[in-house]
Amino acid sequence: MGRWQPAARERLGQAALELYGERGFDDVTVAEIARRAGLTERTFFRHFTDKREVLFAGADQLRDLLVAGVDAAAPNLSPLDTVAAALDGAARMFEERREFAWRRQAVIAANPELQERELIKMASLAASVADALRRRGVAAAEARLAAQTGLAVFGIAFARWVDAAGERMLSDFLAESARDLRRLVVGGRW
Amino acid sequence: MGRWQPAARERLGQAALELYGERGFDDVTVAEIARRAGLTERTFFRHFTDKREVLFAGADQLRDLLVAGVDAAAPNLSPLDTVAAALDGAARMFEERREFAWRRQAVIAANPELQERELIKMASLAASVADALRRRGVAAAEARLAAQTGLAVFGIAFARWVDAAGERMLSDFLAESARDLRRLVVGGRW
Repeated sequence: MGRWQPAARERLGQAALELYGERGFDDVTVAEIARRAGLTERTFFRHFTDKREVLFAGADQLRDLLVAGVDAAAPNLSPLDTVAAALDGAARMFEERREFAWRRQAVIAANPELQERELIKMASLAASVADALRRRGVAAAEARLAAQTGLAVFGIAFARWVDAAGERMLSDFLAESARDLRRLVVGGRW
Repeated sequence: MGRWQPAARERLGQAALELYGERGFDDVTVAEIARRAGLTERTFFRHFTDKREVLFAGADQLRDLLVAGVDAAAPNLSPLDTVAAALDGAARMFEERREFAWRRQAVIAANPELQERELIKMASLAASVADALRRRGVAAAEARLAAQTGLAVFGIAFARWVDAAGERMLSDFLAESARDLRRLVVGGRW
């Protein structure tokens, strides 16, 4: 990629999200995204395989961030607290990119096919987090449960953060959902 | 449906699962399923829209069972215990159809596209359970969390039950996974 386009990827992502928001994901073409960004289609395809990839390229980065968070957590942390530490790091990352995250969420919420893709990505994320826990010596079933429970808490907090549109930090919602989980479990007999 | 084919649907389901298990889901045709069941393609299409439907027709029934379980739970039960009561009912249903459930799971585990479909069905199931909890007066975020956490526990217990292939009851694994959840939450600070 040439030095004269340092922000090409970001510009393409921005242009795509604007267009998806304006006209719906299905009706936007790669040619239009490139034009809005002031770049060529060829440049688009140097950065993304297709127009859906613009929305999901960040998932690999999120997975790496969560796995690194699990790997870096203090060894004496419980499995769920280990996941929580990794999710706190992810919450900071999303807070830095809140505009992108919110717009992206609105596009996905409006499109059932994208919602399915998002679900699949989240499940794959949970599997990666469970694998990272297992590498710390957590038993398989417990690792899966900690990863899935942690990501359920995160997903619910994330949705509330998007709905609140800037009134409160994602980390606040995350702490609140974690308290909900504790109350649900401690307050019952299961 | 004629009275001379009382078990046509069951025979078709059985034949389909046998063939999927023998040759893989992708390589089996509806014509072959009908032939194995000793029925016509036309009969197949009176019961199922396509060959994937054979595997997923039960999801609606499971949803109805879980929602009815939530609706029927004692009003003083906590949200998570309400989900647990509904899941106990589902566990009994699966135990009665264990051969079908195990074969089906093997077919799905062997096919990434079917795994994705299963994930989507599970998410839709969690949403239906959350809706049922909200009708009992549970707040939206808590309802989603109870439903998703409960189904995560169930999914992990279910996978272990299939792996154990008859050594123990699904209800045992469910109780064990519930204990895992409690230990995870109570044993940490999150």
